[in-house]
Amino acid sequence: MGEFELLTRIRERLPQAGPRVRLGSGDDAAIGVPGGATATSVDAVVEGVHFRRDQASLVQVGHKALATALSDLAAMGAEPGEAYVVLGLPADLDEEGCLELLDGMAALATATGTTLAGGDLTRASELFLAITVVGHADSPELLVTRSGARPGDALVVTGELGGAAAGLQLLENDEARVDHTGVGSTLASRLRARQLEPRPRLGAGRALARAGATAMIDISDGLGGDGAHLARASGVGLRIEAAAIPLAAGLEEVAAAVDRDPLELAIGGGEDYELLASIAPAQLDAARQAVDEAAKGVGLTAIGEIVAGEGVEIRLPDGRLLEPGGFDQLA
Amino acid sequence: MGEFELLTRIRERLPQAGPRVRLGSGDDAAIGVPGGATATSVDAVVEGVHFRRDQASLVQVGHKALATALSDLAAMGAEPGEAYVVLGLPADLDEEGCLELLDGMAALATATGTTLAGGDLTRASELFLAITVVGHADSPELLVTRSGARPGDALVVTGELGGAAAGLQLLENDEARVDHTGVGSTLASRLRARQLEPRPRLGAGRALARAGATAMIDISDGLGGDGAHLARASGVGLRIEAAAIPLAAGLEEVAAAVDRDPLELAIGGGEDYELLASIAPAQLDAARQAVDEAAKGVGLTAIGEIVAGEGVEIRLPDGRLLEPGGFDQLA
Repeated sequence: MGEFELLTRIRERLPQAGPRVRLGSGDDAAIGVPGGATATSVDAVVEGVHFRRDQASLVQVGHKALATALSDLAAMGAEPGEAYVVLGLPADLDEEGCLELLDGMAALATATGTTLAGGDLTRASELFLAITVVGHADSPELLVTRSGARPGDALVVTGELGGAAAGLQLLENDEARVDHTGVGSTLASRLRARQLEPRPRLGAGRALARAGATAMIDISDGLGGDGAHLARASGVGLRIEAAAIPLAAGLEEVAAAVDRDPLELAIGGGEDYELLASIAPAQLDAARQAVDEAAKGVGLTAIGEIVAGEGVEIRLPDGRLLEPGGFDQLA
Repeated sequence: MGEFELLTRIRERLPQAGPRVRLGSGDDAAIGVPGGATATSVDAVVEGVHFRRDQASLVQVGHKALATALSDLAAMGAEPGEAYVVLGLPADLDEEGCLELLDGMAALATATGTTLAGGDLTRASELFLAITVVGHADSPELLVTRSGARPGDALVVTGELGGAAAGLQLLENDEARVDHTGVGSTLASRLRARQLEPRPRLGAGRALARAGATAMIDISDGLGGDGAHLARASGVGLRIEAAAIPLAAGLEEVAAAVDRDPLELAIGGGEDYELLASIAPAQLDAARQAVDEAAKGVGLTAIGEIVAGEGVEIRLPDGRLLEPGGFDQLA
């Protein structure tokens, strides 16, 4: 393909640049006028490692690559700003395919107010996308790290968990086919979309930051894994009530069809891209209201508390404790 | 390899963070306190497309990947700030190899005052590096784009051209072996280093920006190709005197050994990562002095002028004009 021509076609499809971008794609560098502080994160996805073209459309691949990058900005409570995209393009991906990838990114960029401000194209033997996202805040103190959780804080989570894991089962496991689970095709589509088209919780993240969240992380590796990251960074322990975890609709049916425990999928499955945060209990009602206003229908649920100590302790409905990785206890 | 352990080893080797970085690698995003304007650029290199591991050490691969990204900041006249690095790691690259890549980047980061502020590691079937660099300036007006050249401006270039192309000949072409060219092993090493370990002209770029450069670009595709980019972006023509182009020492001997014209290698070869800039003639002496002070031994040479019109016209020593791509005229 002619790189120059392709770049021209790509630039024609880019959404309008945001107010912080003085000069977008096409020069040696993009020029921005940032706020008082920036949050910057970079994420890469590789075909065969992070996605499969026989499961996800190229539009979905582009969407998810940008979504997972933006999810890191959500977890900082940052306002999304700019994205810079590297595409590694294999020989079997034609110009139309490249534009489909871009369409997936451009639609999400438009929906979230993100400017696609620059990028680089290269030949590669396999398809990969590396995306750098820059978010903004008026000052560095307004951004929420993983390290500020204090004993006594409440532990909260946005949305529902386990939906992405259930969606993956529907995509990969014949036993989880709709006709076996009885979840219905609309709900099954919604679960697959949780896996293939995650929505970064940018509005909820900013609402939680403003409401006083002391620490925050996005749930990409699973509640257990990312909870452990937050606990380690803050030097505290997490105590989670399993019965309080908001489970995705349809998760129980899919889990039953593949003979797994729904809690295992909700805690260990990952890729839900919901936010896990700690916040003083006195702020909890205000935070819930702020999330409701900023992100319609997402919801905020208290699932436990921050304690002195370390690690993640999950109390099962029957009172037993789930050790890290100890999902066989669930059976 | 254990990603967590590798990340810990990587973080131990990172140079100290600069004053603009409040929080580096390890959270959902890095936190920065930028200046009044940022210049952001992203570059990717892929094994087999941009480098070969049998020609370049992993330290050199890491160095060059960061150097070519920083060269875009040099071309904006920006102060280097932060770099964010994605590594795609194939199965045959072990942990030590990964750390060698990082050492190449870390040494250049230290030398240029760049903070390696974040990154992502992923498995991949071939080695690739995608690097986003962020530079700073007090205001967007102080950054130099490609589009400000005006008829009557002088055209200047930093350093010498053709060295990287001669180095590539020495690496790839048996006819160019030292014993055939008679350039001597020290000079041959220097030419190979121009290809494998380019130095971004960050100091010269800032000096040119302060001295009033009206447009600037780094020479990665060759003087002819990048000159055409600058001409197109500015809506002007470039007139270059071939006799004025500063040729790298040893270029003539290498070119003779492989039966090529040294001007062809200097104009078409690319990868010199020198800067091409336009500037009002009245500022020329001050610019030359500023570059001499900022970048010892690099030098600034006037090679032509900006004219009304379009395209790049190169006047050969005998008065003939070299058309774009018309290197066969040289023979």
